[in-house]
This record gives sequence, C-alpha cells and structure tokens, in this order.
Amino acid sequence: MAKTVRFTKMQGAGNDYIYVDTLLNDVANPAAAAVAWSSPHTGIGADGLVLIGCSRVPEADFTMRIFNADGSEALMCGNASRCVGKYLYEKGITDSTTIRLLTLSGVKTLRLHLRHDNTVESVTVDMGAPVLADAGLLSAPGGSMVNGSVAAGGREFCGTFVSMGNPHFVVFADSLDGLDLARWGALLERSALFPQRCNIEFAQVLADGLIRARVWERGSGVTMACGTGACATAVAASLTGRAPRASRIVMDGGELGVDWAGDDGHVYLTGPAEFVFEGEVQVAG
Amino acid sequence: MAKTVRFTKMQGAGNDYIYVDTLLNDVANPAAAAVAWSSPHTGIGADGLVLIGCSRVPEADFTMRIFNADGSEALMCGNASRCVGKYLYEKGITDSTTIRLLTLSGVKTLRLHLRHDNTVESVTVDMGAPVLADAGLLSAPGGSMVNGSVAAGGREFCGTFVSMGNPHFVVFADSLDGLDLARWGALLERSALFPQRCNIEFAQVLADGLIRARVWERGSGVTMACGTGACATAVAASLTGRAPRASRIVMDGGELGVDWAGDDGHVYLTGPAEFVFEGEVQVAG
Repeated sequence: MAKTVRFTKMQGAGNDYIYVDTLLNDVANPAAAAVAWSSPHTGIGADGLVLIGCSRVPEADFTMRIFNADGSEALMCGNASRCVGKYLYEKGITDSTTIRLLTLSGVKTLRLHLRHDNTVESVTVDMGAPVLADAGLLSAPGGSMVNGSVAAGGREFCGTFVSMGNPHFVVFADSLDGLDLARWGALLERSALFPQRCNIEFAQVLADGLIRARVWERGSGVTMACGTGACATAVAASLTGRAPRASRIVMDGGELGVDWAGDDGHVYLTGPAEFVFEGEVQVAG
Repeated sequence: MAKTVRFTKMQGAGNDYIYVDTLLNDVANPAAAAVAWSSPHTGIGADGLVLIGCSRVPEADFTMRIFNADGSEALMCGNASRCVGKYLYEKGITDSTTIRLLTLSGVKTLRLHLRHDNTVESVTVDMGAPVLADAGLLSAPGGSMVNGSVAAGGREFCGTFVSMGNPHFVVFADSLDGLDLARWGALLERSALFPQRCNIEFAQVLADGLIRARVWERGSGVTMACGTGACATAVAASLTGRAPRASRIVMDGGELGVDWAGDDGHVYLTGPAEFVFEGEVQVAG
C-alpha cells in the first residue's frame, strides 16, 4: 500500500533541500529517502532531505535533521536553517519571529525579517562563536593559523583557519579569475595539517566590507554557497585586517551577510530563503 | 498575483521531464518556464518541460510539445511520449489504450500495456520508418552509409548512419569498457559528413538480440538513454547482420525494446514510464 509524503522544495543561496514536516508525514528511513529523493533524474532532485519536527526539550521550539544526498547525516547547515525558519512562519506553524531550532550541533536561534506582506524576506542565524584552535581539526605548531602557510601541489598558500563547528581554511587572493578551485581545493582539503580534512575558501576583497568567495566543500567539491564558509571567510577577513567585523560575502549562489560585531562574540549569518515548489511523492507504506 | 501551476514529474529510462496538462494549467511562456523550472538548484530540476493538450485535428487525440532545458523546442522524444501515454491513462483523461499523439514531427501512435491493477507497465511507440539516406543530414558519396568509415581525432570509426527524424551514427565495438564517450562523441558529432551534426551511439552485441549502447546526444552530451538512439542502434545492428529485426537495447538509464519486424517497415519502441512525484509551483500571474 503506497503512502503519500508531502514535501516542500526550498533553496537558500542556491543550496536546495527537500523539506518534510514530520508531524504530518512519516519518513521511516530518512537516510534511504535522502538518497532516493535527492537523485536528479529518478528522484525529486536536491542537495538532501531536511526533517522538521517538534522539540521535546524546553530549550528549543523545533528540531531540524539534515540528511545529505549520500544518506549521511549533517550536523548543521546555515542555508537549511534559514529555510526552516521561513517554512515554520509562512505555513503558520509558529507566529514567532524568533525560533530556537535544535540541531545535531546544538540549539540555533533564528531571527526572521518580514516584508510588509508578512512573508519572510531573510533570516539571521546565530552560528555561535568561531574557534581558531582545535587540535582535532588543525594540527599546526601554535594551535591556530592566521595568515599561515600551507603547501599543496608545489605551491604555498597563505590562509587562515577558522572552525564554525566544521573546519575552514580561507585563502585571500588578489583575483579569483581563472582560479582552478577544483584542483587546489582537492589538494588543500587533504593537507596533513587537517586531520579531518578541511573546507577551503578562496576569497577576494572587492570593496570595504564586500568580499567575493568561492567554496570547496570536503566530500562535496565545488558548491554554490556555504553558510559556515561565509562566516569563516568574514572572520578570517576581519582577523587579518581585510574587512570590518560586519561584511557581505558574495558566493556563486547568492549573497550572505555576516556580522561578528556583537558583545557575545557570536557570528550572525543573514541570508535569503525561498520556496521553490510544493510536491507529494508516493512511498511504499 | 501569483498563480499555481500543477505539474507531474515523470521519467522513462532515466529521461525526466516536468509534465503539465495545459487544459488545467496555463503556461504563458513555455520556453522561459522550461529554462527556469529545469534548473536543478533553483527550479524543479528536469531534462525539460512537456505540455500535454487536446488535439484540434481529427487525426490525433492529444498533443505533446517538448521544451528542452535550454528553452529550445524538440521535435519528438520517445521517452517523453511514453510518459504522456501513462499520464493520460492513469489520470483518467482517456480510457483508450491506443492514443494518437500530435508532435512537431507528426502524429505518433502509442499502445499502452497494462498490469492487472490497470496501471501502465510499458508503452510502445510507433517511431516511423528509418531513413538511411538524407542529403540534409548525411553528405556521404553514395547517399547512405552502412558499415562506413568516419575519421575523427586520428582514428577511423566504422559505423552506420540511421535517421529516425534526427540523425544517428552507430559504431559497434567489441567492448564498451574504458570507452571515452565524451571525447569521441564530441569529435564524431562534428564530422564534416554530418551537416547538421549527429547523435553518436557506441554499441556492443551482448547476446543474440541483446545490445548494450551508450549515447552521445548532439547539444546535450552523454545522456542516460535516447529513444531514437535505441531505434537507430537496433536498425544498424539488423542491417549489418549483428542482430535479428527485434532486439533489446540496454542503455545507462534502462532497457528498451525495439521491433522492426512488421510489414509496414516502421520501428516500434517499447519501454517503461514512471511517475516520480506530483507538484505545484507558483508563477507570476
């Protein structure tokens, strides 16, 4: 007997997931569903599957679980969490513009920014404090690496290590024109300095507080945008005197705002979230 | 004011399109919609858009128009026409298992094969008669080319030219292991022998009447399957004594049956058609 699962396809900065409200739709095996549904020709096609649920703990309002297209479970995704905020508000599940979302990397607070017609224009996510030294993620002599040098493929790259829960190495260049991101990203990702491999950003300062960045994600390759990568880029730019504490990051999939200026030392990521379409799929029941 | 367009995603042998019933849903600019909706991250994601409509001529029951992901209009697609047959029958728009479909390359007749539960298991499409000599598509000395030689990239390829409305050049090999389809396909496509370029198939006889084929489509590159390519492969195999007049073609996206044995000289293509999901998308009204 087939069952119907209703879903919503949403995207933020070109990062697209299938969103399912698990209160109304049962997804028995989300890892297998993520693999089947993410497939572009025979499935729905997406970067992965996001399950939205109610929280059972008092410190959060809702839960989010993210399964990548390969079935693995992700800890957190800034782009996806913004879409969850828009989903909860515009579907009338909450009327609050502040939402505490329980993820595998802890409770993340969302702030929704509304248009005059009460739709969500953008969402700010508290991404927590950046970590510059983490022996599990960076095996550098001093513990951290700011404007440090990494050798790969016979070249030296000057960059800054920033963990936003996941590790990033940000390399500033005078120009990104002609950058062979796939080549250098793959080489740098596997440097011996990064015991759990590393996400790689190449960045260029375009103007005061305006930074162009391209992303190589460990395990995924070149992607259109990366929320934690935007945060790491802004933090690295600020640490090295290239940008103020608040900046805008222009990625291939869209523009994200990063603010690291507050007293709490947290990084706040602001960006778009969009509905793409509504759908329903039949699954074996 | 936004309007809702309901659509159905279907696939046949890995070829996926967005299907819209134009009686119920108005698509004002299908070329632009095909481009926007086919996009994998910000749209629905598909190989293109298929519009299903009523026929205004007595010799056809329904119409089909196909727009590729780049917005160009295709003449005909065997995989898409099978899906249209399943759509019309299982949605209750027709109760006939024989459907005459008006396409830009003429009226195509579909025969639906039903399961015991009255769902459509597969569909046979009359693809018309193959054409071996067409001066507009092949500029060979004798007009046709059966086991002829084409030079490309410093190599000679022995193959057979077959037009099924669109041009195909079928090269048989002892093995397809290690074939650099993208390289040789791109080179052969642009041989001076093919004034309008050419689709390229590399094929291998696996057993009597069972042929493995891989497809390079002009304008698209390597694809999972191609209905006219399967027909051309079977015709070429039969013409050169490699297979009987009916054979099964194993492509990357699935298996297709081709029968060229009837008195009418037409090629009949049989293959699967599957619903993937139902959806609705908002468009500016």
